[in-house]
Amino acid sequence: MSSNESASRRSFLKGAGGLAAAGAVCPFSGASAAAGTAMPGAAAKGITPEARGPSRSESVPFDGPFQAGILTPLQNHTCFVALDLETEDGPAVKALMQRWTEAARRLCRGQTVAPLDGDPDKPPADSGDALGLGPARLTITFGFGAGLFEKNGVDRYGLKSRRPAALIDLPRFNGDQLVPGNTGGDLSIQACADDPQVAFHAVRQLARIADGVAQLRWIQNGYNAQFAAKDTPRNLMGFKDGTQNPISSRPGDVHAICGGKKFYSGSPEKVVWADGDDQGWMRNGSYMVARRIRIFLEHWDRTAVSFQEEVFGRRKVSGAPLTGKSEFDPLDLDATDKDGNPIIGENSHVRLGSAATTGGAEILRRAYSYNDGLNFVAERWPPWHQGLEYDAGLFFICYQRDPRSGFVRIYDGMSKLDLLNQYATHVGGGLFLIPPGTGGPGGYIGQSLFEGVALRAAPATNLSKKSAAY
Amino acid sequence: MSSNESASRRSFLKGAGGLAAAGAVCPFSGASAAAGTAMPGAAAKGITPEARGPSRSESVPFDGPFQAGILTPLQNHTCFVALDLETEDGPAVKALMQRWTEAARRLCRGQTVAPLDGDPDKPPADSGDALGLGPARLTITFGFGAGLFEKNGVDRYGLKSRRPAALIDLPRFNGDQLVPGNTGGDLSIQACADDPQVAFHAVRQLARIADGVAQLRWIQNGYNAQFAAKDTPRNLMGFKDGTQNPISSRPGDVHAICGGKKFYSGSPEKVVWADGDDQGWMRNGSYMVARRIRIFLEHWDRTAVSFQEEVFGRRKVSGAPLTGKSEFDPLDLDATDKDGNPIIGENSHVRLGSAATTGGAEILRRAYSYNDGLNFVAERWPPWHQGLEYDAGLFFICYQRDPRSGFVRIYDGMSKLDLLNQYATHVGGGLFLIPPGTGGPGGYIGQSLFEGVALRAAPATNLSKKSAAY
Repeated sequence: MSSNESASRRSFLKGAGGLAAAGAVCPFSGASAAAGTAMPGAAAKGITPEARGPSRSESVPFDGPFQAGILTPLQNHTCFVALDLETEDGPAVKALMQRWTEAARRLCRGQTVAPLDGDPDKPPADSGDALGLGPARLTITFGFGAGLFEKNGVDRYGLKSRRPAALIDLPRFNGDQLVPGNTGGDLSIQACADDPQVAFHAVRQLARIADGVAQLRWIQNGYNAQFAAKDTPRNLMGFKDGTQNPISSRPGDVHAICGGKKFYSGSPEKVVWADGDDQGWMRNGSYMVARRIRIFLEHWDRTAVSFQEEVFGRRKVSGAPLTGKSEFDPLDLDATDKDGNPIIGENSHVRLGSAATTGGAEILRRAYSYNDGLNFVAERWPPWHQGLEYDAGLFFICYQRDPRSGFVRIYDGMSKLDLLNQYATHVGGGLFLIPPGTGGPGGYIGQSLFEGVALRAAPATNLSKKSAAY
Repeated sequence: MSSNESASRRSFLKGAGGLAAAGAVCPFSGASAAAGTAMPGAAAKGITPEARGPSRSESVPFDGPFQAGILTPLQNHTCFVALDLETEDGPAVKALMQRWTEAARRLCRGQTVAPLDGDPDKPPADSGDALGLGPARLTITFGFGAGLFEKNGVDRYGLKSRRPAALIDLPRFNGDQLVPGNTGGDLSIQACADDPQVAFHAVRQLARIADGVAQLRWIQNGYNAQFAAKDTPRNLMGFKDGTQNPISSRPGDVHAICGGKKFYSGSPEKVVWADGDDQGWMRNGSYMVARRIRIFLEHWDRTAVSFQEEVFGRRKVSGAPLTGKSEFDPLDLDATDKDGNPIIGENSHVRLGSAATTGGAEILRRAYSYNDGLNFVAERWPPWHQGLEYDAGLFFICYQRDPRSGFVRIYDGMSKLDLLNQYATHVGGGLFLIPPGTGGPGGYIGQSLFEGVALRAAPATNLSKKSAAY
């Protein structure tokens, strides 16, 4: 285990509140003296442990063996974008990743994307809306969709042979209603920060750099409430969200009992980091699945508490499993009531999501709530209300070493059986490969992919014409 | 001046940073010992003045002679909704305002909307997503659209004779592209808080209470970055936003020099509170104009800094007027360059907005940025880009004693002449009358309107059928 890994690990070992920890313990902190200290930034700024954020002056280093924004304690806001590559030129894509890396490094330090050179007759190097704001724990996590390797059967950039087997085309799951305009993309950027303006500012500068090479395809903004450090956040359904997340638990905690067997919490590192089995360049990378999950909040709010708890398999206020007393008690999947029915129902969300049911599948959840206004819904349940309803729900994001043994295995069962599906519909998302980190200040994101391969180049005129327009 | 007014006033007199003050000085604080003390909550919680928020445990009292959320120091998040009344029953509207008031009182204290009675076989009294979150300086500000008084010429509830002259139908301004689905409404609720989940939670509980009486028409979420207390916030155009807002200035500050005459900053109270001239029940009320202003950020980002500064009449980084050195220097509208042209251009945003140009018109701005994803734009400027662009900009909100002498007078000129109009389009909004506050814990919002008038009732069967469905 590298020293960076061990620094991030110690913060998880502090306890179950890791997901919502008050100060950031930077997973890739270069300052080893600070590593492992709980809330160094918070102490310096005089913020009490009661409040998690904001941490305006705290930064999370961009460089490291892994990308930041995965094991980094959850920030309050996210701005996620997927982009379509519009160039046929492989070197242009590589150059974009180099420019993006340079830019992201500056942004994550709380700097403008490029120095403001002061020439008043040029467009500003930076849009300026984050001037005076701190880094606010900004992380920028880049991803590659399948389209970088192969699109409509075409090896666009000469990278097809380097596509890892784990970068599958996601199957169509039961109930999927994915809208093309909120689905897929050749590249992804997830900016997370404790300030929404910092997150959007980062995405906007990066999109501008991509001009002529990649075009925004969809954006999803999301937030997490500022729960106290010791509390698991609640989602818009009012339930605690993330109790059994590997980052919230201590490795060795018993998560579930099933068939008399105990199931233990896994290590976050083992859950998320790929080993590069079939493609060595993917070592220290990961895979991210994003799902825009619309939740029918009006319908949910008219549902009896007892049924809400049956749906989840947990108590609403305490978060305890129906077989336990407090939030972190293990799920007893064997326990039955006096009629012999399982107390945690066969179709409950926690049972279907448990490693005990999925054969040990594990993911790291890093989800945000979203709230995008209203649109028309014709309800399929009494009293068959029709009208404008909240377009709100969960922007579910998870990381794993391999989506085939992670999200796909878990959600395949859930999509067919979960009681929650009455209230939630997947309406967008994608699968993105998360390349390893830069390794240090001299590297760039995607380097292990782009180096040592003959990139396919487009005729130069094509590209220069496009760039010259701006 | 009431003691509440004087308490809120003292906080403005602290200096120019009032808009972004760290802790809330509750405008209607019942505790006179605390009134006038700078940042009492911040001191108690150990938050340094550097950071404005969040203030999870701070609350702003709901009751008072005026509604909160107007002179309250700006929170970081807003969730605004407009609703259409779908009842024909006047007493049902009055009952809704009474229920909303009770609910808002609890929500602003950080409580669930109603006690959780624990009957598991009923839908929960509260959706639960704010359990464990503090009040986060939540304010809930209710508004009445013209449709409460008269719709399509019909006096729906017997309130037509009580419509104040100031509640005009907004004129169509030059360039308006208002989308019906984001415009108007019979009622409005603006929830503002330092946590987006707290703001949305409040709106969701209130909308649920309205079931059968009023239906959501549109929602707009917005945010303000967490700038340091001493700094004027920047909007998405990267310019400081609100330098000349009455709440940011000291009464008596010189704002502008024009024709050799000095123009002074007004008092926020005089700007916002109506005196109830033609309708006595409106005393201590206000008028709110909301405008959803889409800003073409991609186009703006390709514009030279010098032209951006010409558009605003201010420097981008410092916020100083083009005729001054620092942000709070007065606008010298008389100053000319060596060719005799005004330094602050005839079509600049600050000149057109200045009381010197508008004949003394004043408003209190309380705007939020919004960021609602992407949609298709065919640009009308070189290089005539077509494609997906940010649906982002400013959710402009202002308060005034009378919109005819406030927003309408200011924006009429701006809509025709402002250089900014190349980059911004008004795509939604509305005018809402803000009734006075409850006056105290026994009152309700709208009481002075609904009491002492014969409300028109619908046949009882009509209403009870609708309610019984739930």
